[in-house]
Amino acid sequence: MANRFFGEVPGVPVGTTFLNRAEVRAALVHLPPISGISGTGAEGADSIVVNGGYEDDQDFGDEIIYTGAGGNNPGSNKQVDDQKINQSGNAGLITSELEGFPVRVVRGFNGDPDHSPTVGYRYDGLYRVADHWSETGLSGFHIWRFRLLRLSTEEAAPYTPVENLPQGNAAPGVTVGVITRIVRSTAVSEWVKKLYDGTCQICGVRLEVPGGLIAEGAHVRALGNPHKGPDEVSNVLCLCPNDHSLFDHGGIYVDDDLTVRDAAGGIVKELMVKPQHKVDLGHLQYHRALWGH
Amino acid sequence: MANRFFGEVPGVPVGTTFLNRAEVRAALVHLPPISGISGTGAEGADSIVVNGGYEDDQDFGDEIIYTGAGGNNPGSNKQVDDQKINQSGNAGLITSELEGFPVRVVRGFNGDPDHSPTVGYRYDGLYRVADHWSETGLSGFHIWRFRLLRLSTEEAAPYTPVENLPQGNAAPGVTVGVITRIVRSTAVSEWVKKLYDGTCQICGVRLEVPGGLIAEGAHVRALGNPHKGPDEVSNVLCLCPNDHSLFDHGGIYVDDDLTVRDAAGGIVKELMVKPQHKVDLGHLQYHRALWGH
Repeated sequence: MANRFFGEVPGVPVGTTFLNRAEVRAALVHLPPISGISGTGAEGADSIVVNGGYEDDQDFGDEIIYTGAGGNNPGSNKQVDDQKINQSGNAGLITSELEGFPVRVVRGFNGDPDHSPTVGYRYDGLYRVADHWSETGLSGFHIWRFRLLRLSTEEAAPYTPVENLPQGNAAPGVTVGVITRIVRSTAVSEWVKKLYDGTCQICGVRLEVPGGLIAEGAHVRALGNPHKGPDEVSNVLCLCPNDHSLFDHGGIYVDDDLTVRDAAGGIVKELMVKPQHKVDLGHLQYHRALWGH
Repeated sequence: MANRFFGEVPGVPVGTTFLNRAEVRAALVHLPPISGISGTGAEGADSIVVNGGYEDDQDFGDEIIYTGAGGNNPGSNKQVDDQKINQSGNAGLITSELEGFPVRVVRGFNGDPDHSPTVGYRYDGLYRVADHWSETGLSGFHIWRFRLLRLSTEEAAPYTPVENLPQGNAAPGVTVGVITRIVRSTAVSEWVKKLYDGTCQICGVRLEVPGGLIAEGAHVRALGNPHKGPDEVSNVLCLCPNDHSLFDHGGIYVDDDLTVRDAAGGIVKELMVKPQHKVDLGHLQYHRALWGH
């Protein structure tokens, strides 16, 4: 982590413009001369360029659905091959997601006209990688997609106690991030958690703390763009935070016969479902497809 | 959950003022005529009044360190007895914390002069209960404290699909909240997670997902007010989300001999610590004291 630089570049405020990628690089905002993602799985990704290089990108301003690296034809921007999760840039974005590292976003003149500069490049601030999944892209190949959300002021100004780095170790740098797990608690998820009395439907754990229970209502098909899952009991499971995290990140999936499997297909458990709780198999199938199962 | 009303009261914008508690009640902003907390453990707490009623309150505007209910003398505002976690208002605030329910905050003329109206009461918007702990108050009695943080715009405007309530059940109301778990990822916590390769020091689980590991750097003595724990390896554990949640909410604690115990004192595990990782026993002790051990 020592060499990669995360967060704001001192002296480069949001909105700074650049004539070309060489200027972006010289300003230390995004170092790779051509690649859209700067990063590796071991270090995380510190910056991306959004410039219409992938036909599947979607830009909503504060929210970006960004296509992973690989498999595209730079001439036509068409996908001509599958994308790999262990490709360096993709793995870097996953690390940044799991560690909460901030990602600098640079938009280029070829990007979505509503949010991009008309010429050159512009530094547009810090985003976090909220989640990722795979799908079949417009050209029929397997692609990875990353949802990036603009950091709030609180998140973008994290606690940075540089003076307290571990002693006697290779200096890990001053990388600082914030992992923000937002779990929407709806009337429906409250109902499901109550039905199971906070017991995880996957591992059966029931996490008691003084005054309450730790349990989460997990939407099988996620709410919001682009999944647009419904907030119905058929789409919600009562899970512990560990299994919820595993489920959301593709570490486990559930077959139609309710067998819970790990990413390699090994059997983990059977999903415990009460008769009153009709889980929609279509949603489980949608979730499996996100992770290539 | 059917009767308690969470979130904004339609027609009552932030900043609305009231002459007295009767007017606050009539506007449905805070129903109890005298109590500072409106809520129960089963339903959660939907509103509080901050009005200097407890000598240990601290008001920083966007952050409030609020004293739980009970044990004080209304005449002098002094604590004259211990506070109980199962007291209705206290249990309500814990439920709101664990479920992510929004809490309406009303400030009164007796509160902190920097943040309170000079006369009457004022509705100051929605907050979330970020965490809670116990301590010995100024008068030497055991009190419960709750940290409330003003909700961001995103959090205060949650997804509310009222049309999709569970069919065939007692309507659970339209209660909606957002559980926001913010885990600060510092250089120090990265170092600790790397040392253990993402393995939880309490339960030994290692949560693998495609492209990475799910593990959290848990500060034993929390960063920030009022705990002011240091960001040093001696104050950080590598934990899975389940054990991190349990630890932060008093569901487990660690003895000086590294025995991990549940809230009732039962032995859960032994904390796994590598020789390179010197855990500061003073921080473990600080954490135990927060939960009365």
